[in-house]
Amino acid sequence: MSATLIPAYEELKRRNARLYRFEHLIAIASHDRATAMPAGGNDARAAAIAELSLLIHTESTAADLGALLSAAEAEPLSEQAQANLREMRLNHLFARAVPARLVEAKSLAGARCEHAWRTQRQANDWKGFLENFRDVLRLAREEALHLSDALGLAPYDALIERFEPGMRSAELDRVFGDLRAWLPDLIRKVHLAQAPLPDLKGHFPREAQYALSLEVMAKLGFDFDGGRLDESAHPYTGGVPEDVRLTTRYTETDFAQSLNSTIHETGHSLYEQGLPREWVDQPLGRARSMGIHESQSLFFEMQIARSEAFARWLSPLVVEHFGPRPGFDPQSLYRYSTRVAPGKIRVDADELTYPMHVILRYEIERALIAGELEAEDIPAAWDEKMQSLLGIDTRGDYRDGCLQDVHWTDGSFGYFPSYTLGAMYAAQFFAAMRQSLPDVETRIAAGDFSAINEWLKDAIWSQASRWETADLVQLASGEALNPAHFRAHLERRYLG
Amino acid sequence: MSATLIPAYEELKRRNARLYRFEHLIAIASHDRATAMPAGGNDARAAAIAELSLLIHTESTAADLGALLSAAEAEPLSEQAQANLREMRLNHLFARAVPARLVEAKSLAGARCEHAWRTQRQANDWKGFLENFRDVLRLAREEALHLSDALGLAPYDALIERFEPGMRSAELDRVFGDLRAWLPDLIRKVHLAQAPLPDLKGHFPREAQYALSLEVMAKLGFDFDGGRLDESAHPYTGGVPEDVRLTTRYTETDFAQSLNSTIHETGHSLYEQGLPREWVDQPLGRARSMGIHESQSLFFEMQIARSEAFARWLSPLVVEHFGPRPGFDPQSLYRYSTRVAPGKIRVDADELTYPMHVILRYEIERALIAGELEAEDIPAAWDEKMQSLLGIDTRGDYRDGCLQDVHWTDGSFGYFPSYTLGAMYAAQFFAAMRQSLPDVETRIAAGDFSAINEWLKDAIWSQASRWETADLVQLASGEALNPAHFRAHLERRYLG
Repeated sequence: MSATLIPAYEELKRRNARLYRFEHLIAIASHDRATAMPAGGNDARAAAIAELSLLIHTESTAADLGALLSAAEAEPLSEQAQANLREMRLNHLFARAVPARLVEAKSLAGARCEHAWRTQRQANDWKGFLENFRDVLRLAREEALHLSDALGLAPYDALIERFEPGMRSAELDRVFGDLRAWLPDLIRKVHLAQAPLPDLKGHFPREAQYALSLEVMAKLGFDFDGGRLDESAHPYTGGVPEDVRLTTRYTETDFAQSLNSTIHETGHSLYEQGLPREWVDQPLGRARSMGIHESQSLFFEMQIARSEAFARWLSPLVVEHFGPRPGFDPQSLYRYSTRVAPGKIRVDADELTYPMHVILRYEIERALIAGELEAEDIPAAWDEKMQSLLGIDTRGDYRDGCLQDVHWTDGSFGYFPSYTLGAMYAAQFFAAMRQSLPDVETRIAAGDFSAINEWLKDAIWSQASRWETADLVQLASGEALNPAHFRAHLERRYLG
Repeated sequence: MSATLIPAYEELKRRNARLYRFEHLIAIASHDRATAMPAGGNDARAAAIAELSLLIHTESTAADLGALLSAAEAEPLSEQAQANLREMRLNHLFARAVPARLVEAKSLAGARCEHAWRTQRQANDWKGFLENFRDVLRLAREEALHLSDALGLAPYDALIERFEPGMRSAELDRVFGDLRAWLPDLIRKVHLAQAPLPDLKGHFPREAQYALSLEVMAKLGFDFDGGRLDESAHPYTGGVPEDVRLTTRYTETDFAQSLNSTIHETGHSLYEQGLPREWVDQPLGRARSMGIHESQSLFFEMQIARSEAFARWLSPLVVEHFGPRPGFDPQSLYRYSTRVAPGKIRVDADELTYPMHVILRYEIERALIAGELEAEDIPAAWDEKMQSLLGIDTRGDYRDGCLQDVHWTDGSFGYFPSYTLGAMYAAQFFAAMRQSLPDVETRIAAGDFSAINEWLKDAIWSQASRWETADLVQLASGEALNPAHFRAHLERRYLG
């Protein structure tokens, strides 16, 4: 048998396609776990997913990958292939940066802490949580040092790099510092001036909410031939670009909660469905970053669905699905979706106060990784920041304070900034889109989202990971990340 | 690092456990495909499943497996471990028997033929089907020769061995020959003597059928903590023993169809849920054979659920779920479930005529593999046998004749006998069980299935693949496969 010499880049593509297929099975098994699996199936499922994840990790750290990457980098490649190779190289750096025993220790400590947290949170048991969390923090700091070495970044920046490649905490300081300077004042002003809210509580049958969700999703452009809507305890977007699985949850006393959540996940889903199909099994074909992903969900949830124009379109739809009732007129729906109410819980926060929750977490986790703060110092820091940022007293309430989020329980430090980066990117993209679609509000009010989706597909979705994040933002919007767009958007909507 | 010497048997167990976890992911992805996946996800799903299947095949044919098996066979092992090793050896024989290029060619030809069959069947297009099917048959004959060499069996026996290890066509000739001798007469007699049937058609809402299914399943002993009921085009039992997924389908004009199908799949599911958990990831822990599997579904569907006692228990339940109506009294339900009506379609056949459909297919496929019959001869053979076995004219009707089943489209020759073997095993097991539970009918009428399930769990489920099939039958029932039990059962029920 004579060996045929395959170019290194082609061999790398083949291997990535294989891993993509394995990840497909993990995505579907994970989705089934969250939406269908009975409790008794959990151990077997966890073992099955872990076995295939281990195989993926083994193949991602194969000894010959470094040489293959170097060989490919010397091959004549198209611009897109070069971008694909750049993403492969970054993935490889990540995969090799952290020793296997640390990956395993972190995964075990995270699973233990997260599992216990579910009951500890309910019990307001900070002390109990702390026992597990100390290990998680210790291992995260260790991981940050390894990543820092491998990537040549400061430790916390190296953690951010996992979710928002190219973002640095110096840049976050700049844009979050900008927000911190004017947002608290805006919140106070809007909160004080706010008229009493229409009451939208009532009984909204699950089936009617489901039907409304499907109709709104279809109108927003979701392709049901390549995805579906399910129900889970925590809404998410999963599956694969060819078969996107988004979930929502239904509160029968409050249809808006589920609808907002469905629209948010539809934004994530449209991004996944709009990724270039010819690159779907390659790193180039993946969504650019968590911040850009969040920008797409917030583009739909905040920029579009909390606009006055959207309320005009939605009003007859909710009447059709739930029957007429007071509060279903466009003006009430709009006032309801733009109400401002500082509160303890991030996921329940309105558009104005949400960034304060993120900045609080960002400042705490940055200090934790830097060693300027220890695990036991979190509650005091939390209380102090909630008071100064939102004027809220959280002392003694861990459940709805520093124990409210899942992110830190498994050591996902560096993720929180994505949410507010996403909100800022979304405002910036919307402003750029308005340049070419000056009648965008008219279109929204008519329920015609096709031109909006075409713009997004062209500027964001089809670009996938072809450009680094900063370049994508520049190309799509004509400038670098600029918090002025977010400010202008909020002032127009809440003061206008 | 010093190498620790792991006993060969332990290494084999470790590898089998790994493959079991991979098979878990394929089972769940396949179940999702049949119950949830949108059409547009099909190509990606097929590629993902194929990739992991290929990996399983590669690891199942690893070059060092033969030596490991031989080494393990020389190790001191418990009786159970020896049985586990016997199953591993058989799996290895199968995996290595057929050259990879033939496996692939067969898989491609089967997929092509099966895919085209879906529309060809509807169009009564035998000629179109034949074009693809000639390849399928040719490759199946080739496969049979390879398996024959590897297993030291006649070619058709080697195909049967995949589904019913230990069964030979000489034995099938004996037991099916027995049936052929008395069953056609019994059918004629019962059919002529049958009183007009109660009419059970009506409108039975899907939701009410679902609720009834769940209640019956729970009463029959299905553990909903380790499984669930879904809906699919063709009912099946899938998933893994720790998380069994069974499906049904609902015809709103006929609740009995769905209920029978749910009970049938519940029998399969109880077997899976009752397999010994400590061996779940090993060959020893698998269900014994397709015939034994079918014996468990038919034990519940035929032996239990078509009994007069069961109709007494079911009657108030159907009233509760659908409201009172004529035909819901126990006697009508019993007459409905034991009606006899010779027809063209196997899956719609009643308990008496079903074996004739199987014997017909058995005789044809045995002749096909032996080269005594060619693909183009099938319709004539079919027509002749339908006439002689059931007195039915099928000439020119391929759709409801030789094109009705999926089995041959992908070359699953040797499977059909399992259905009637299952019916015979079920009758034999029920007769044996009656010895220790003489009041079994009283229990069924009271909806108390616990002692029945204990007997089955002890005799069949917990034994998994510990014994070869013939030994399992002997141990469970005290004798070898004996068609007299099936005859006695049918005569008691239909002539009694």
